[in-house]
Amino acid sequence: MSKNIKMKSLIEDIRKFAKQRDWEKFHTPKNLAMALSVEVAEIVEIFQWLTQEEGIRLSGDKLQDLTNEIGDVMIYLTALSDKFGIDPIEAAKKKMIINDKKYPVELVKGKSKKYSEY
Amino acid sequence: MSKNIKMKSLIEDIRKFAKQRDWEKFHTPKNLAMALSVEVAEIVEIFQWLTQEEGIRLSGDKLQDLTNEIGDVMIYLTALSDKFGIDPIEAAKKKMIINDKKYPVELVKGKSKKYSEY
Amino acid sequence: MSKNIKMKSLIEDIRKFAKQRDWEKFHTPKNLAMALSVEVAEIVEIFQWLTQEEGIRLSGDKLQDLTNEIGDVMIYLTALSDKFGIDPIEAAKKKMIINDKKYPVELVKGKSKKYSEY
Amino acid sequence: MSKNIKMKSLIEDIRKFAKQRDWEKFHTPKNLAMALSVEVAEIVEIFQWLTQEEGIRLSGDKLQDLTNEIGDVMIYLTALSDKFGIDPIEAAKKKMIINDKKYPVELVKGKSKKYSEY
Repeated sequence: MSKNIKMKSLIEDIRKFAKQRDWEKFHTPKNLAMALSVEVAEIVEIFQWLTQEEGIRLSGDKLQDLTNEIGDVMIYLTALSDKFGIDPIEAAKKKMIINDKKYPVELVKGKSKKYSEY
Repeated sequence: MSKNIKMKSLIEDIRKFAKQRDWEKFHTPKNLAMALSVEVAEIVEIFQWLTQEEGIRLSGDKLQDLTNEIGDVMIYLTALSDKFGIDPIEAAKKKMIINDKKYPVELVKGKSKKYSEY
Repeated sequence: MSKNIKMKSLIEDIRKFAKQRDWEKFHTPKNLAMALSVEVAEIVEIFQWLTQEEGIRLSGDKLQDLTNEIGDVMIYLTALSDKFGIDPIEAAKKKMIINDKKYPVELVKGKSKKYSEY
Repeated sequence: MSKNIKMKSLIEDIRKFAKQRDWEKFHTPKNLAMALSVEVAEIVEIFQWLTQEEGIRLSGDKLQDLTNEIGDVMIYLTALSDKFGIDPIEAAKKKMIINDKKYPVELVKGKSKKYSEY
């Protein structure tokens, strides 16, 4: 899969980071999946006690925290993807096509049920 | 933040998908953080009972499942980021610089302790 | 740690279930931690698109789903705890004493900040 | 549902803790589900870089950390359950009966496939 320049650069940063620290042995797919879930929880932690309104208006230190945590999630998602030659952006674009069919506009408009409930 | 073409196209797909279904009202940052964690759990589910070896050798349907789930995680990560004008790849590249300082090679080489333990 | 009768009976059910299926080899602490996180995500999934109000008024099939998922989380929490001879209820009661000191009433009343922010 | 004495005492501790701090307004089911997932991630964090062997041999500070995190997970699971009058131990025992049928010994023995794959 052809990856864009920024993604290629991120993948190289991640590989170099792990290699320099001799951390490749820890970065198995199973362990990276765990680390990914830990980082996502740090995003959830930012929003857990906030109202919907407060979550929308995030700013200052909280917004910086969120940016950093999004960075961490993207790092582990890319690291895991890289183990299998998957491009996360490509995978997302292809999944959007599947989702488009799974949730037909005329059936789901304005409703939030799970697809299995339709 | 200047975003690359593929990312821009993904963001547009995501916005259009939500708008067509009148789902923007559900896609608050708080709800998207929850959805992100649910999708990450579907990646964890693939690996939970596998040995490290089996996780590395993933192929066929399992690999396709993983690709789809990585797609879903990327979709929600991008959707959440978009609410705050954050570019996940940019955020990851900046976070790599922070991580580089947080885990100095000479201190952490070959060890997996948490940075707070150093 | 002395465990109450119901907890003892649950632990016995869980041990027997794994033994009968020859699943003890899969039930390592690391794997059980992953399974626990997957089951918790199924609780999060129930609430992800609901308003706070809708979440409070859960009933019928949704409430039954929640009950089942709470059951699954309790099963894996107990299975993981059992590997180390930990009683989850005891651990919770002891943690309440720690939390009581960590969040002094006079400092936190009505506020939701993280303890590290005080 | 009749709850055992220890569980009753834990529920009372949790209610009193939230009431004293005027935190009941934050403790909606939706928010508690998020908090539960954040606490579970702290368990996953303990195991993420450990081998299966290291995870089994956990001791000292790490074991104490795990005990505390199991306590936190049990607290939020109980708090969420209490909002709907659910007893987590009862729910687990009933779910074991369902799981027993869902995974027939003769079909699953020694295998770790998901039930939907049988």
